[in-house]
Amino acid sequence: MARYRLLLEYDGTDFEGWQEQPGAHRTVQGALRAALGSVARDLEGVSLLGAGRTDAGVHAAGQVAHGALDTRLEPCQLFRALNAQLPADLSVLGLAPEAEAFHARRDARGKLYRYRLWTGPARAPLRARFTHHVPQRLDLEAMRRAAQGFVGTRDFRSLCAAGSKPASTVRTLTRVAVEGCPRGEISIDVEGNGFLRHMVRNLVGTLLDVALGRRDADSIADLLEQKDRGAAGPTAPACGLTLVRVDYGRNLDWLPAVPAAPRLGAGISA
Amino acid sequence: MARYRLLLEYDGTDFEGWQEQPGAHRTVQGALRAALGSVARDLEGVSLLGAGRTDAGVHAAGQVAHGALDTRLEPCQLFRALNAQLPADLSVLGLAPEAEAFHARRDARGKLYRYRLWTGPARAPLRARFTHHVPQRLDLEAMRRAAQGFVGTRDFRSLCAAGSKPASTVRTLTRVAVEGCPRGEISIDVEGNGFLRHMVRNLVGTLLDVALGRRDADSIADLLEQKDRGAAGPTAPACGLTLVRVDYGRNLDWLPAVPAAPRLGAGISA
Repeated sequence: MARYRLLLEYDGTDFEGWQEQPGAHRTVQGALRAALGSVARDLEGVSLLGAGRTDAGVHAAGQVAHGALDTRLEPCQLFRALNAQLPADLSVLGLAPEAEAFHARRDARGKLYRYRLWTGPARAPLRARFTHHVPQRLDLEAMRRAAQGFVGTRDFRSLCAAGSKPASTVRTLTRVAVEGCPRGEISIDVEGNGFLRHMVRNLVGTLLDVALGRRDADSIADLLEQKDRGAAGPTAPACGLTLVRVDYGRNLDWLPAVPAAPRLGAGISA
Repeated sequence: MARYRLLLEYDGTDFEGWQEQPGAHRTVQGALRAALGSVARDLEGVSLLGAGRTDAGVHAAGQVAHGALDTRLEPCQLFRALNAQLPADLSVLGLAPEAEAFHARRDARGKLYRYRLWTGPARAPLRARFTHHVPQRLDLEAMRRAAQGFVGTRDFRSLCAAGSKPASTVRTLTRVAVEGCPRGEISIDVEGNGFLRHMVRNLVGTLLDVALGRRDADSIADLLEQKDRGAAGPTAPACGLTLVRVDYGRNLDWLPAVPAAPRLGAGISA
C-alpha cells in the first residue's frame, strides 16, 4: 500500500460535489475512487481525501487529493490507466508517490478560489457553464473597496453557511482581488488559509450587493462584527466558482510534468 | 413585415448544426425560428438565414443572421423576448432593423473561424467542450510554415468535403495564424472571404499531420494542386471550431450595444 498525491481538474456542472455521501449518485470523490479501485490490487484499501470539499456545481482546475493504493503500476502508467477510466468531466492532471505523512487537507497552507461573472446584456452560452450572469451594470470601484474589508484574520461567521457548525469560524484571507470590466467578464480571486462552507459564494453575493448599490462598500467590518449569516448577502450560484490552486509552501512535482503555475482555462478574443 | 439582423452566440455541442433539415431534431436555425415565431404576429412569414451554415458541434461567438418578422415590439423588447424563449446554449447578443436588401450570407465580405487545440498530457475537462485534445508534442514552427501555404486565392477542392459539389471551389484566405505553446492551448485563426464544407476542419487536420511529422510543411502547394480530398489530412473534430466573426466591410450597430471587436470567451490563469 503506497500513498499518492493527485492533481485534479473537473467540470463540476454534473457532479453533486466532491464528497461521497448517502443519496449522492455522482460525486468527484466517488468517480475517482471507482477509477482507483479498477487499477488497485486490494479494493478495500483504496482511500481518497481532497484538499477542498467543493460543493455541487463548483469546478476545479487544481484540486489536490491524496490516496492509498496497492498497485504495481509505475506513476506514468497509473496516470494513463486512471484517465482511461475517468469520465470526460474529470481528469487527473498529474500524480506522484508521497510520504505516508502527507495529508492533502491538513498540509495545505492556502487555496485560491476564482469566481467569474459575465456582465454583458445577453447570456453568453460559451461561458455559461463557468460564469454567473449579472446583466446589470456593476460598480467595480465599490466592489474593490468592499473586497479589501474581507482581507485579514477575522471571524467570518457572517459568511458561514447557516447549517454548518465548525469549531472555529476564524480564518485568514490574504487577497481578495476584483479584475475585469463592467460590460465584460469580471473575476474575483479569493486567497486564504482556509474556507468555511459557502464562504466564497457568500462573500461574492455580498460584493454583488455592493456592486448593485444595495449595500455600502464600507459596511464590511460591521457585517463581520455582527457574526450573523443574515447580515451578509445571498449565496452566489455555484457555477461561477472554481478551485484554482492549493498551496503547500513548496513546489510539488507531478508526473507527467505540470507547470508550477499552470494556465487553467482559456478563451476566445477577437 | 420587417427585416432584422441578428448577432448570435451558441455552444454547438448539443445542436445538429445551424441548418434545419429533415430528420434533424435540434438545430440552431430551428430553435431560433421557434423563438421568432413565438413573438411574431404572422407565424407563416417568419424566415431566417445565417451567414455561415455551421456543422453539428461547431460553436459560434458571432454568427450573423437575417430574418423577416411581423412584430410591434421595439428592438430592445424583441431582444429580451427572444432571449427569454431561447435555450441556455443559444443567445441573441444583439439585433437591429435592416434594409430589405440586406442578406447575411451574400453581403458578408469575410469570416473569422478559430480552431482551438489543447496539447497538455491530460484531458482538460474545463476546456473539453471547446477544444480538441492532442496530447502529442506538436511542431509549432512547422505548423506556421505550412499555414502560410494556404493563404491566397486558390482552388481549395482538396479541402472540400467529399460529398459537397459547389459551383466553384476557388476561395481566398487572407490569414491563417497559429498561436500558442506546445504544452498549452494552440489556436488556429482562419480568415477568408468564403469557406467550403469542412474546409477549416480539413485545413486543421492537415496542419496536425504536419505538426506530428506525418507530412512535410512545404507540401501544401502540391496538396492543393492535386484538387483531391484524399490528398489532404483528416477532418479535425467539430468541437474545436468556433465561428468568431462575420465581416461586412462596415461597423454594424446592435441593440443593445455590442463592442465592435467583442472579447469572445475568457479563461482562468493562475
